[in-house]
Amino acid sequence: MTRDMAFFEFLCRMGDNTLVLGHRVSEWCGHAPVLEEDIALANTALDLIGQTQMWLGLAGEVEGEGRSADDLAMLRDAWDFRNVLLAEQPNGDFGQTMMRQYLFDQAHVLLLQKLAGSSDERVAGIAAKAVKEVAYHVERSRDTVIGLGDGTSESHRRMQAALDLLWPYAGEMFTDDEVSGIMAGEGIAPEPSSLRAAWDAAVQETMSEATLVIPDSDFAHAGGKTGFRHSEHLGHMLTQMQWLQRAYPGARW
Amino acid sequence: MTRDMAFFEFLCRMGDNTLVLGHRVSEWCGHAPVLEEDIALANTALDLIGQTQMWLGLAGEVEGEGRSADDLAMLRDAWDFRNVLLAEQPNGDFGQTMMRQYLFDQAHVLLLQKLAGSSDERVAGIAAKAVKEVAYHVERSRDTVIGLGDGTSESHRRMQAALDLLWPYAGEMFTDDEVSGIMAGEGIAPEPSSLRAAWDAAVQETMSEATLVIPDSDFAHAGGKTGFRHSEHLGHMLTQMQWLQRAYPGARW
Repeated sequence: MTRDMAFFEFLCRMGDNTLVLGHRVSEWCGHAPVLEEDIALANTALDLIGQTQMWLGLAGEVEGEGRSADDLAMLRDAWDFRNVLLAEQPNGDFGQTMMRQYLFDQAHVLLLQKLAGSSDERVAGIAAKAVKEVAYHVERSRDTVIGLGDGTSESHRRMQAALDLLWPYAGEMFTDDEVSGIMAGEGIAPEPSSLRAAWDAAVQETMSEATLVIPDSDFAHAGGKTGFRHSEHLGHMLTQMQWLQRAYPGARW
Repeated sequence: MTRDMAFFEFLCRMGDNTLVLGHRVSEWCGHAPVLEEDIALANTALDLIGQTQMWLGLAGEVEGEGRSADDLAMLRDAWDFRNVLLAEQPNGDFGQTMMRQYLFDQAHVLLLQKLAGSSDERVAGIAAKAVKEVAYHVERSRDTVIGLGDGTSESHRRMQAALDLLWPYAGEMFTDDEVSGIMAGEGIAPEPSSLRAAWDAAVQETMSEATLVIPDSDFAHAGGKTGFRHSEHLGHMLTQMQWLQRAYPGARW
């Protein structure tokens, strides 16, 4: 694998995570339990979609085949997506959405902090901008996980169920492979595994405050960020996300 | 409106009803409560999709612009669909699906019996074939509505809720307009209103056996069969139903 091929893959991983999770979060728009949460979720979705434009825009540049961020977002099929499986999991209830968000945000912020010092100044620039937004995301999702985990017996039960459900999707964020090895060798991005200890410590502290028990298993689903095997949910999501560009090719406004 | 324009509209109403309801029913495949119901629902869906090929195939012929049944099914947008709103309503639980099916089947069978004597022999031919399938559909959906309505307190409660929910969508099947007037004048199809009394009598008997109470209201949503105002559900359904042909235009297998 060439350096540019790996770089393109890496940028798709970044941009597809924010695109797919951003779309999922946007599904809450108009449906969240209270107005303030509705607005906060919509803002989170907008931040993530904005980051997507930067990551996939750069991916298109690096690829050099004339594909724009929109082309990559709207005209690839499921097997070309490189997001982690966690990002594409369904929203479930509000607690499940916020648990997914926290597990992701906590890894996202650690990664972006490192990427702000990337040897590639375009990557460093995007990360420096995104990390400010994501620092706020993780503060908010962490507070919500704690508030609901250490809340009523019903909210506690739901948050524990969400953690049990989503835990097997967390490990994929920290696996290394050829792509990440090349990126680390070039000083563009850290090996994902190098972020695990800090993530574990932060998550342990959060779950402890939330009175939630982290499952005693390090089994991790894989296949999202390599594109090898996405869950069924991604294809269904793409039918809705991409329909307009598929039905009206090249439509602009 | 010319005779051929009205004929095309009429055929789209027939074919879009079976297409949209058939797709909805197919969503149950692999999810129904017991294997026999799963297979029965899948067979019902197949019957309806098969009827769609005949109705929309004839619609394309009558239109004379070279559109096939597949083109009409997969490449029109929501506003060009002519199905009644009842057909596009979500599945809900199994009881709600079967209530929707019964209300539709009971009208469908009465209409097809008349269409088997249509002045247009192609219409008569399609109807004669379809009515055999639909006679079985209504027998089965009627039995299920009675079984669940006059079942446990839980199944009764759900069937009454389904009837209350869907009742306002039944009336649209019996409204007359310019299209139906031209069809009736040509002897191609009866005025929908002419089927209402027989439908009312059958539904009244079924609901009585099912110990369910028909809502005391003749309010009826409209806009589906004219295409003027579909419910939000149709667009979402089309994103999934049409995605493959939209993403891979002209794909065949």
